[in-house]
Amino acid sequence: MTSVRNRSRLRKGEGEQLRREILAATRDLLAEKGSHDLVSIRDIAHRVGVSPPSIYLHFETKDQLTYAVCREAFEGFGARLLPILAGEGDALDRLRRVGEAYIRWGLDNAALYPVLFLGEPPESMEHEVMAGDPGLLVLAGLVALVRLGMDEGAIRGDSTPEATAWAMWAAVHGTVLLLSSKREWMQSHLAEADTPIGIPGVDELIETVIEAVFRAFSPADG
Amino acid sequence: MTSVRNRSRLRKGEGEQLRREILAATRDLLAEKGSHDLVSIRDIAHRVGVSPPSIYLHFETKDQLTYAVCREAFEGFGARLLPILAGEGDALDRLRRVGEAYIRWGLDNAALYPVLFLGEPPESMEHEVMAGDPGLLVLAGLVALVRLGMDEGAIRGDSTPEATAWAMWAAVHGTVLLLSSKREWMQSHLAEADTPIGIPGVDELIETVIEAVFRAFSPADG
Repeated sequence: MTSVRNRSRLRKGEGEQLRREILAATRDLLAEKGSHDLVSIRDIAHRVGVSPPSIYLHFETKDQLTYAVCREAFEGFGARLLPILAGEGDALDRLRRVGEAYIRWGLDNAALYPVLFLGEPPESMEHEVMAGDPGLLVLAGLVALVRLGMDEGAIRGDSTPEATAWAMWAAVHGTVLLLSSKREWMQSHLAEADTPIGIPGVDELIETVIEAVFRAFSPADG
Repeated sequence: MTSVRNRSRLRKGEGEQLRREILAATRDLLAEKGSHDLVSIRDIAHRVGVSPPSIYLHFETKDQLTYAVCREAFEGFGARLLPILAGEGDALDRLRRVGEAYIRWGLDNAALYPVLFLGEPPESMEHEVMAGDPGLLVLAGLVALVRLGMDEGAIRGDSTPEATAWAMWAAVHGTVLLLSSKREWMQSHLAEADTPIGIPGVDELIETVIEAVFRAFSPADG
């Protein structure tokens, strides 16, 4: 009886350690399966090596757990991009740096990226997602910076700030997804085949995309 | 006994009809589940209302069946885009039209698009995918048209034709995915909330992206 009581009343450090292990296992499973719907509390408990009730000591529902993982990832995303958006340099220069940082962050987090940027957040978490989500703060910061650049004449104003910001987002979003899925597949399966499909290098494609976005939204000459 | 024999020896038209129904059910299931791995012959048989062995009369393996669906979709994709790539007009004008047609086709096929353009093809089908796949023909045609445009001086030659073609692909790929996943989600969940996140219109974003790609790869002035 004593040993059972000891196990459920974990010392503070042990509880925190288990919580970290649960988050790490959930993150790995989300990355492997690609969707919240395909990961169960049972899978997570199995991966950590504990029983499902041990998970519920730390997280009330699966949605709260998968949301905690996504939130943590988006916090890393915000920590990387928000200082650039709000930092030094003219608008177009900051946009160029934020675009490259976005792609690099996406490739560093390639397995989780589709869960974060293609799927929908866990349903019961929608309210929290709306309130202060770092991913949405980055998007709001991007639109604000584009608007500022247009006001200063540093970014061309043919389109609305929203459409311009989303067009920039589409370019870097598509680049992350092509580099992490299609390019890898083509490289392993078409490289040895005698095929006319050329595959650009990672750095080469990133530079081409970033320079193209820069040129596309620079102000019109004279 | 006679009726059983009649059912297994289908008249020609009935077999073709069942084949179409199997393909349609598989297409729907792939679009709903988002991946080959999540669709089973049992699911497909259940959706059509036949037994699994009836499926095997038409397709030897699940891979052959899901490949047939993807192949059919890519044939529609090629039929829409290849005539533009190989058609009239200067290179940059054709690229502009092929870019817009790509996005419109992606939105018309939004549910199946991630299966076709994010996942990998069924493993056993890789050889067929390499040989004459219409999706790869479009990519090869795009690279060839970019190369032609660069030779003619109609497209700027700062990057390789491959990196330029992939950068264009990234822009339209990202646009299809943002419009069909993120924009829809934001519209339904952020519209009623008092949020500063502006959401561009579909036509507005498509036009902004296409014009931006056009400007980005036009030859440098003077």
